[in-house]
Amino acid sequence: MAALQATGQLLWSCDMLCDGVDFRSQEHTWYDIGRKAAGASLSDCAAMASRPTAMLCSVCLQESMSEDDALELLRGVHDMGAQFECLLAGGDTNSWPHPSVIDVAIASSIPEGRQAVLRSGARPGDVIYVSGLLGGSILGRHLRFTPRVRLGLQIAEHLQPHAMIDISDGLALDLWRICEASVCGAVLIAEQIDAVIHPDARRLAKQTGRPPREHALFDGEDFELLVVLGSDAPQGSVAQLDLHRIGDIVAAPETFALRDSAGRIHPLEARGWEHFR
Amino acid sequence: MAALQATGQLLWSCDMLCDGVDFRSQEHTWYDIGRKAAGASLSDCAAMASRPTAMLCSVCLQESMSEDDALELLRGVHDMGAQFECLLAGGDTNSWPHPSVIDVAIASSIPEGRQAVLRSGARPGDVIYVSGLLGGSILGRHLRFTPRVRLGLQIAEHLQPHAMIDISDGLALDLWRICEASVCGAVLIAEQIDAVIHPDARRLAKQTGRPPREHALFDGEDFELLVVLGSDAPQGSVAQLDLHRIGDIVAAPETFALRDSAGRIHPLEARGWEHFR
Repeated sequence: MAALQATGQLLWSCDMLCDGVDFRSQEHTWYDIGRKAAGASLSDCAAMASRPTAMLCSVCLQESMSEDDALELLRGVHDMGAQFECLLAGGDTNSWPHPSVIDVAIASSIPEGRQAVLRSGARPGDVIYVSGLLGGSILGRHLRFTPRVRLGLQIAEHLQPHAMIDISDGLALDLWRICEASVCGAVLIAEQIDAVIHPDARRLAKQTGRPPREHALFDGEDFELLVVLGSDAPQGSVAQLDLHRIGDIVAAPETFALRDSAGRIHPLEARGWEHFR
Repeated sequence: MAALQATGQLLWSCDMLCDGVDFRSQEHTWYDIGRKAAGASLSDCAAMASRPTAMLCSVCLQESMSEDDALELLRGVHDMGAQFECLLAGGDTNSWPHPSVIDVAIASSIPEGRQAVLRSGARPGDVIYVSGLLGGSILGRHLRFTPRVRLGLQIAEHLQPHAMIDISDGLALDLWRICEASVCGAVLIAEQIDAVIHPDARRLAKQTGRPPREHALFDGEDFELLVVLGSDAPQGSVAQLDLHRIGDIVAAPETFALRDSAGRIHPLEARGWEHFR
């Protein structure tokens, strides 16, 4: 059990990772797996523009794991947190004969005078941005990303974002979540999406035979921020924070689409990585 | 993500339960499993004499589970928390082809003017008590217990306990944890232990062929409180709170023993339910 000295609003979330689903212990090091487990929870904090404080890590480890493996896993969780002055404060350790499961619960706080950034504040006329290149993270980036904690705080400080989410389940699905929570629609611009396709998406496209743009739209675990700003957001700060414009929020909740370079509108599927689907 | 309004010291812990280890989904209802998952975390709060505030529930559910099963599980978590005005505030949902894993993280606060009760405050001359009957919980009680949240708070209010722990891994092992943290030893009194043997321990003893007292000492998941009080604790309150005396704290850390009715001292094994052993 961990003790936190808390004042004001404390945010609190958790993220569970499973062997064979979110990582592969046969391929990945336990250190990297620990970093990913902490990173996914830290990324949730980034999306709320909150400052991470402490983590608890619960694990159920496959019995075949050595104590060294378990320590490497915890070292990864610890080190990833330490990058953001977020303490690994406790947890629960279990073992069983099945693949390993890791849950990281994280507490974070909103800097004084500010509020948490939610998914629900997007408004018609707002502009949609993304903090980096997308797609093909499965080729390795999903395990070696830096959660956008500092960027999330900077965006909140300089840009008064209307809504924010981290792209964990894919651009289209996570954007759809913002639209659903905000009761509005969105139109992405094909050329603007093409400008944020990650080289990994192009490499992966050669393996899958699918267009690179599809990987940018529907792959998960980019852990970039999807940011919705008012149309009057200061473009100097937008450029300084290296945000890439990718589309617009529109009034009609039933509009969820991609506009091609000829101005044609194509419906966009709200799909990505989803459990129970 | 959940938001808590926090002032003062916030305690924070988590407890992970795994199918086939901590429950059996083939035998138990998902509602009961949910209650147990929340109850185990609430029991941690009871042991610290803290007031539960909110829970997060992360799950990785076996794909064969129906949505109704998943909802029953959450209803169990919710209802158990609601008994103690502890809100189910959020979580994370995953699925996979393996047995289900459930983690409940819980936030709790220490009532104003008091401090968390730790494991480390036991002193030579202190007296060891237990809040109820022990052993044989595997016959069903491990799934249908009431965490001693209110009792923990009452003990802290009336008895200034030196140390407290909830018996989740077995009396002997959990007492040993208090001794280790407090750098002292303990002597349990055989007749006093015999007076807190649960009828389930006697029933189970008939199946296992082991003495009922062994089940009281070494079985896990009683979820009763193990309480260490100063020798001057007001006996009226002790009786009113129905605490049963079972032994004494002694100075020598190497003494961990059971005294029989003839006054003979038998070393006590610090064993119970332990992962990675």
